[in-house]
Amino acid sequence: MSEELVSRKELAFQLYEVLDTESLCERERFSEHNKGTFDAVMDTADKIAREKFAPHNRKADLNEPTFDGERVHMIPEVKEAFDTYAESGLIAGRFDFEDGGMQLPETIMMACSSYFTTSNPSSTGYSFLTVAAANVIKNFASQTIKDTFMPRMLTGEFTGTMALTEPHAGSSLADITTNARLADDGSYRIKGSKMFISAGDHELSDNIVHLVLAKIQGAPPGVKGISLFVVPKYRLDENDKPSQRNDVSLAGLIHKMGYRGTTSTVLSFGEKDDCHGYLVGEEHQGLKYMFLMMNEARLGVGFGAAMLGYAGYRHSLQYAKERTQGRVAPNNKPTDKPATIIQHGDVKRMLLAQKSYVEGGMSLCFYAARLVDDLHTAASPEEKQKTAELLDLLTPVVKAWPSEFGPKANDLAIQILGGSGYTREYPVEQCWRDNRLNPIHEGTNGIQALDLMTRKLWQANGAGLVQLQKVMSEDFAKAKHSISQQLIGDLQPYLTKLQALIPLIGSELRGENQNALLANASCFLTIFGQIVVSWIWIRQAITAEAALAKGQLPQDDEAFYRGKLQAAKYFIDWELSAINRDFTLLTNMNDSCSAMQESWF
Amino acid sequence: MSEELVSRKELAFQLYEVLDTESLCERERFSEHNKGTFDAVMDTADKIAREKFAPHNRKADLNEPTFDGERVHMIPEVKEAFDTYAESGLIAGRFDFEDGGMQLPETIMMACSSYFTTSNPSSTGYSFLTVAAANVIKNFASQTIKDTFMPRMLTGEFTGTMALTEPHAGSSLADITTNARLADDGSYRIKGSKMFISAGDHELSDNIVHLVLAKIQGAPPGVKGISLFVVPKYRLDENDKPSQRNDVSLAGLIHKMGYRGTTSTVLSFGEKDDCHGYLVGEEHQGLKYMFLMMNEARLGVGFGAAMLGYAGYRHSLQYAKERTQGRVAPNNKPTDKPATIIQHGDVKRMLLAQKSYVEGGMSLCFYAARLVDDLHTAASPEEKQKTAELLDLLTPVVKAWPSEFGPKANDLAIQILGGSGYTREYPVEQCWRDNRLNPIHEGTNGIQALDLMTRKLWQANGAGLVQLQKVMSEDFAKAKHSISQQLIGDLQPYLTKLQALIPLIGSELRGENQNALLANASCFLTIFGQIVVSWIWIRQAITAEAALAKGQLPQDDEAFYRGKLQAAKYFIDWELSAINRDFTLLTNMNDSCSAMQESWF
Repeated sequence: MSEELVSRKELAFQLYEVLDTESLCERERFSEHNKGTFDAVMDTADKIAREKFAPHNRKADLNEPTFDGERVHMIPEVKEAFDTYAESGLIAGRFDFEDGGMQLPETIMMACSSYFTTSNPSSTGYSFLTVAAANVIKNFASQTIKDTFMPRMLTGEFTGTMALTEPHAGSSLADITTNARLADDGSYRIKGSKMFISAGDHELSDNIVHLVLAKIQGAPPGVKGISLFVVPKYRLDENDKPSQRNDVSLAGLIHKMGYRGTTSTVLSFGEKDDCHGYLVGEEHQGLKYMFLMMNEARLGVGFGAAMLGYAGYRHSLQYAKERTQGRVAPNNKPTDKPATIIQHGDVKRMLLAQKSYVEGGMSLCFYAARLVDDLHTAASPEEKQKTAELLDLLTPVVKAWPSEFGPKANDLAIQILGGSGYTREYPVEQCWRDNRLNPIHEGTNGIQALDLMTRKLWQANGAGLVQLQKVMSEDFAKAKHSISQQLIGDLQPYLTKLQALIPLIGSELRGENQNALLANASCFLTIFGQIVVSWIWIRQAITAEAALAKGQLPQDDEAFYRGKLQAAKYFIDWELSAINRDFTLLTNMNDSCSAMQESWF
Repeated sequence: MSEELVSRKELAFQLYEVLDTESLCERERFSEHNKGTFDAVMDTADKIAREKFAPHNRKADLNEPTFDGERVHMIPEVKEAFDTYAESGLIAGRFDFEDGGMQLPETIMMACSSYFTTSNPSSTGYSFLTVAAANVIKNFASQTIKDTFMPRMLTGEFTGTMALTEPHAGSSLADITTNARLADDGSYRIKGSKMFISAGDHELSDNIVHLVLAKIQGAPPGVKGISLFVVPKYRLDENDKPSQRNDVSLAGLIHKMGYRGTTSTVLSFGEKDDCHGYLVGEEHQGLKYMFLMMNEARLGVGFGAAMLGYAGYRHSLQYAKERTQGRVAPNNKPTDKPATIIQHGDVKRMLLAQKSYVEGGMSLCFYAARLVDDLHTAASPEEKQKTAELLDLLTPVVKAWPSEFGPKANDLAIQILGGSGYTREYPVEQCWRDNRLNPIHEGTNGIQALDLMTRKLWQANGAGLVQLQKVMSEDFAKAKHSISQQLIGDLQPYLTKLQALIPLIGSELRGENQNALLANASCFLTIFGQIVVSWIWIRQAITAEAALAKGQLPQDDEAFYRGKLQAAKYFIDWELSAINRDFTLLTNMNDSCSAMQESWF
């Protein structure tokens, strides 16, 4: 692997050229920041990731946590990494100054996270989940709960989890059976079993704060009866110190194919009928709270998938530049020197495909992170409203697209390394295994497709789509040079087809082809995803071409921008063009899948 | 998983309905066989696979072989399985009666192998590699070498390997540096290092017979200077008993992401300048001998990939029938009972895609196995010649298509199982990891694409293609019913486009677009593969529709044939239609990949 975990040139391009992240400093929330502080925090993240996370990435994979019936054991490097991360203040990075945070933009925090995900996604999990849980508490919990738990989560003294899934209820949270009973002291007694809870047990922190979905006795059925509770591993004494063990126990660790360093747990709540939980916000609003944080959670998954894709891409690129094999015309006599494999056309193809997937996914996620920043800090309520509509629409793509194409990139990386890629002596197979979780969690990609096609598209009378068309048009108007203009021209027919398709879907969703359409939802996600990422690539191409047009660039800058243009061209020519199939299937209401009967398999 | 490792109904359909395997019994070589003996040997394979191979598939994955510096250790179940396999006579299944074999058709031996690959691909590796090595010895070695080694390989007393790859030379065998020096006794002294040698060391057999590619001193450069040697782990004494250790040593075991039960080794030959090897056939003809066996080796890889895909498909099918989650209209109130997930359209899609991949791949390989039988036993030299031409043309597809789509099926199986699919508590992730080797070994799929587009297509003046068109036309003429006829009609435009494309490729391969074309070779493999598999699916559809037309079928037969028709329709509608993109890229000589420069990445 090359020395840099993530190319700083790439990050600077995404943050300061494609996006104008510096302009955020003009907003009140970020007014104490400038490019210098942004870069400094990225330097810190880079350094910690290189020194404390990267070195034990494989070791944590080979030595997954074990449970002796009482405690979870893991290699000591994980705690050292976690502590260093916590001490750096990064857990609190995006939180308010008054909460002890750094009040940094989401965009910059995402750039920081790129270093951790590429170096060691599983040791990273403990702090990332703590941030997510603290964010929920900050937004929805009472001041008392907030004061009790949040400050210590932001320092890493306590860690957090999200406990949603149950053995029988994953995608269908409506069916959870964990229940909560109001006790005399105003708190609740929680009882039930949760599964696949990441970071659900460990010895890294003094306490673990579980955010648990449960139903209060007598609640309405389905999702409308779900409430959210804070359930600590240790109850706090009168001095708010963790003391008595709460009735939450680790029923077992789950053994995953990847992400092995992050414990995945089955947790039992209230086996002794004494599991204390504290209601977050109001009764029966738990799922709503979770879903209000869902855009950010799904953005995190998408970005993680893109960056694990990126890690594999960089490994395979390095390998392809060094490994020699075979010969390339005109020097293809046996007595000629072998060529580096990057010179072979098919290897170039596999590298370029990876580049288009991972830099496309990364750029998409940075765009979405900027929307999150705008959501919190845009000048007017109207702007915030429009931002929210666009972000809602894009979220299924932001989650699903990188988590489909990131592992695809990893698969190509394995192929480039050949037999070596298949061994655990090289890092690319672990990238794939770690990444394979991402199409599954935080809503499977099948769920994302349904969410997009049946809900997000129509939300607020389709306002998200109007907003998307508006920002696309504004971007396209900025294209002053021939390659970008050509790419925009190439994209146009697909936009036209999409405009014709959407009303058809709208009417058929309520019509007789409903089943066919639902079975083909993945086709719509594919169409929408490839069009969105084409636009994202065109944004990069416009930026690159404008930079090239200024001329007199240092050689490596020139090469960098040329690469961006070529990858954009590849993406439009090779990847976007594949969606014609999906247009046909959807337009014809193809029923191959929906007409299949169970007994015919 | 369902009780059957492989559906016997499926095998019977492929062997006795789509192919007329029984008719082979009319040929002299197979005249002592009949459907009864074929079924009996399949029963034996099924029984051994279920009893001796399936039970330790996961255990072997979790406890990979270790090397203590002297010996390789592995779980005892592997030897028990190997011994049972050997005792059953299956190693010798396809060999002549006079060699102690059963003189069974390749088609039937492939059906037998389906049970082993689905139950435990890595414990299977030791015997399969022995068969391959014995086959080379049988065809090319002197009578003395043959008499010395082959009989004991066919009983499993000795095992075999194929030692081609070296640390610096994988795809490019021209560059191997292992060398051979003629000694006074007429044998050779071998010196060099080999890598990724499967089953290269273990304690399962009394001896290991390595087939080693090496260059005799003074040989011409490149592939024309490669010879083939038999190099045993133990030399034989005057009574032909393994005695003195030959100078072959295990330098180390390679740790793979899957196929962990089969040792993958780095072997050192002649570290003490005393590694005895025996020339197979003539000097400098080694690669030719290997390549004469390559069609069969690649067929084995393709079939293994299809069957590992099949194993995952069956696991996920079973899971989808049992697991409940969410609801399906019109019963979608929270108070309605949850639905089994097979009722959800997107799950049906993922199952149907898998079915189309794995049964398509399986059927393709059975077709190719029948060609191997015809190659050996067809009535006339002309027929054998035509069979050879067709098999040569199809081989890149037979190897690459199932090894691309088998792992794709496994990926979908993981997705259907969701979080459970991501754990090692369920078998699908191992299927994927085991299968991921197949796109890499026996010629990467990139190499297959180049082989097809630049060589096989033009071999014998394109005779293979002529033959393919002929057999396709003959098959299509058999379609008497509407669905098959419709599918043939749907395929037609693609055949027309292919016919126009091939001469274009022929001229551009020698023209200025050569680099673009070589970088896009995978597109041609995709086009050709999808068309071939569409034809293979249409063959199945014609058979199924004819059976349905007879009427009065038992319910499960009716369902089986309906499923075949639906999968064929799915394949043509969803998978074949995707190649329009590849046609466009090739026809336009798209240079996105070839124009990419190393410094731009």
